[in-house]
Amino acid sequence: MRKFLTRKVTIRVPASTSNLGSGFDALGLAIDLPLTVKFEIGIAGRHIRAQGEGAALLEQEQDNLLLQAFDRACQELGCESPPLRIEMNNPIPLKRGLGSSGAAIVAGLVGANLLCGKKLSQQQLLDLANEMEGHPENASASLLGGLTVNGSEDGVVKLQRFLPPEKWVAAAFIPDLEITTHEARGVLPETLFREEAVKNVQRVAVLVAAFAKREPALLKFGVQDWLHQPYRKALIPGFDDFMAAAYAAGAFAAFLSGSGSTILAICSKRNGKKISQAMAQTAAQHHLAGRAAVLKFAKKGAQVLKN
Amino acid sequence: MRKFLTRKVTIRVPASTSNLGSGFDALGLAIDLPLTVKFEIGIAGRHIRAQGEGAALLEQEQDNLLLQAFDRACQELGCESPPLRIEMNNPIPLKRGLGSSGAAIVAGLVGANLLCGKKLSQQQLLDLANEMEGHPENASASLLGGLTVNGSEDGVVKLQRFLPPEKWVAAAFIPDLEITTHEARGVLPETLFREEAVKNVQRVAVLVAAFAKREPALLKFGVQDWLHQPYRKALIPGFDDFMAAAYAAGAFAAFLSGSGSTILAICSKRNGKKISQAMAQTAAQHHLAGRAAVLKFAKKGAQVLKN
Repeated sequence: MRKFLTRKVTIRVPASTSNLGSGFDALGLAIDLPLTVKFEIGIAGRHIRAQGEGAALLEQEQDNLLLQAFDRACQELGCESPPLRIEMNNPIPLKRGLGSSGAAIVAGLVGANLLCGKKLSQQQLLDLANEMEGHPENASASLLGGLTVNGSEDGVVKLQRFLPPEKWVAAAFIPDLEITTHEARGVLPETLFREEAVKNVQRVAVLVAAFAKREPALLKFGVQDWLHQPYRKALIPGFDDFMAAAYAAGAFAAFLSGSGSTILAICSKRNGKKISQAMAQTAAQHHLAGRAAVLKFAKKGAQVLKN
Repeated sequence: MRKFLTRKVTIRVPASTSNLGSGFDALGLAIDLPLTVKFEIGIAGRHIRAQGEGAALLEQEQDNLLLQAFDRACQELGCESPPLRIEMNNPIPLKRGLGSSGAAIVAGLVGANLLCGKKLSQQQLLDLANEMEGHPENASASLLGGLTVNGSEDGVVKLQRFLPPEKWVAAAFIPDLEITTHEARGVLPETLFREEAVKNVQRVAVLVAAFAKREPALLKFGVQDWLHQPYRKALIPGFDDFMAAAYAAGAFAAFLSGSGSTILAICSKRNGKKISQAMAQTAAQHHLAGRAAVLKFAKKGAQVLKN
């Protein structure tokens, strides 16, 4: 059985948005709102200390995805799961479509891998994250940074990555409204018209091309979706008004972040504040509590801060 | 009413493959098998002389897409359709999924536009071609060359373009089997499962990313399709064997070209002949007459040869 080589490591893992409208279960985009986790082994017992978003929940060991991912990586590494102290600082709101689960899974996998001498490859980490989350795009964005274009086949993640231009940012409205991915999948119909699928295929193809070419003019067309947003938007009061407000204020593209509840707009740096304020006004009109924010995209994925 | 400025023009327009598996009605890729058309006005009557593929059919004025496109462009230009002599040399087999209609439409539109002083923009030409053909991807590839990533909304084509690497070629088997796009659309079901649409969305996203990054390793995954090939392949004897033969001989990707009947493989130059021969053998096993070919991709679209 393998031994752990290192006793302490601190890592930082970005949040992520996903789907981007047309790219359901395909596109992830890392957001610079980083979960920080300090792992320490060689002490007795298991201890989790959490600060920030959902701290009380994150301290419950039995539900902690990060620990589950740590143990899953240990299993894959052939290392016995060790006694462990975890200190985490989480700025990613839970159940708002900002990839808190993906980031936690990546943190757990990468933490175990670093402590055990980096024996798992990037592909293995991606495949384990995909297995745990059931879809690859949030975890791949958190692991690698940038925009990730994902698919998977027989459990193997297939992926390409692009960096969004430096001057693109995300204007977001994050409602005080929790939506689980499970709940958000429950509202989707099992079948759709071929014409709808064809429209999504065209949009996501153009969307990926627009990212590859760094062409903002095609983003609005590219994020149009017939696969999930038309059903999920019923979960968000005033969803269409948020879209209208974001576009009126100059957004390149606006969409439901992941399975919600966050609404996210890609825009130029100079329009970020204006768009987030416009969305906050829309929220007020619909009596939807929450907060507006302008967030950077994260070019880097999971990073070691110090050993 | 506008006047024609020029009396003669000769243009060359490449063929195209389309769909590329997952990219149904979204992806077009220009193929260096060029239709050549000489237009001459200022003579009495209308004359069409055709050589090459489908020459007899192409000489029937009432069915001639090229003439219809010429007249449609004249209408858009505000020019009366003039008496006209057309001499065409067509190497593109008809009704085999190699974009003969798209090339003819582009030739007619571009010919009229050149004779009338280039008053129509590229966007107008694309939109007219899309209107005439009902889908944009073949005509856009013939007009612009390279890989075109297409969608359309309210009659307006949205497009990005990538050049495939110089060392990628197409190995093709072109059966003696005509399939009309109309017929090939007739076999498609009206609805599909959401999971199938999601798989196509992932594949086409990865496929476009693979072209943007020039990454052949992801093409095979990227061309997988649940939208049309599973239904259309029944029209091609031995379709699955063609796929297996192409991949066994080293193809990066293999798929039904457009709505068929051509089977096309993207591959490296050095494997082109081997793959086309493997497909010819498969055809012989299935008693399917036709011809194997190795074709280059066309980097340039419609070009003026001489005025």
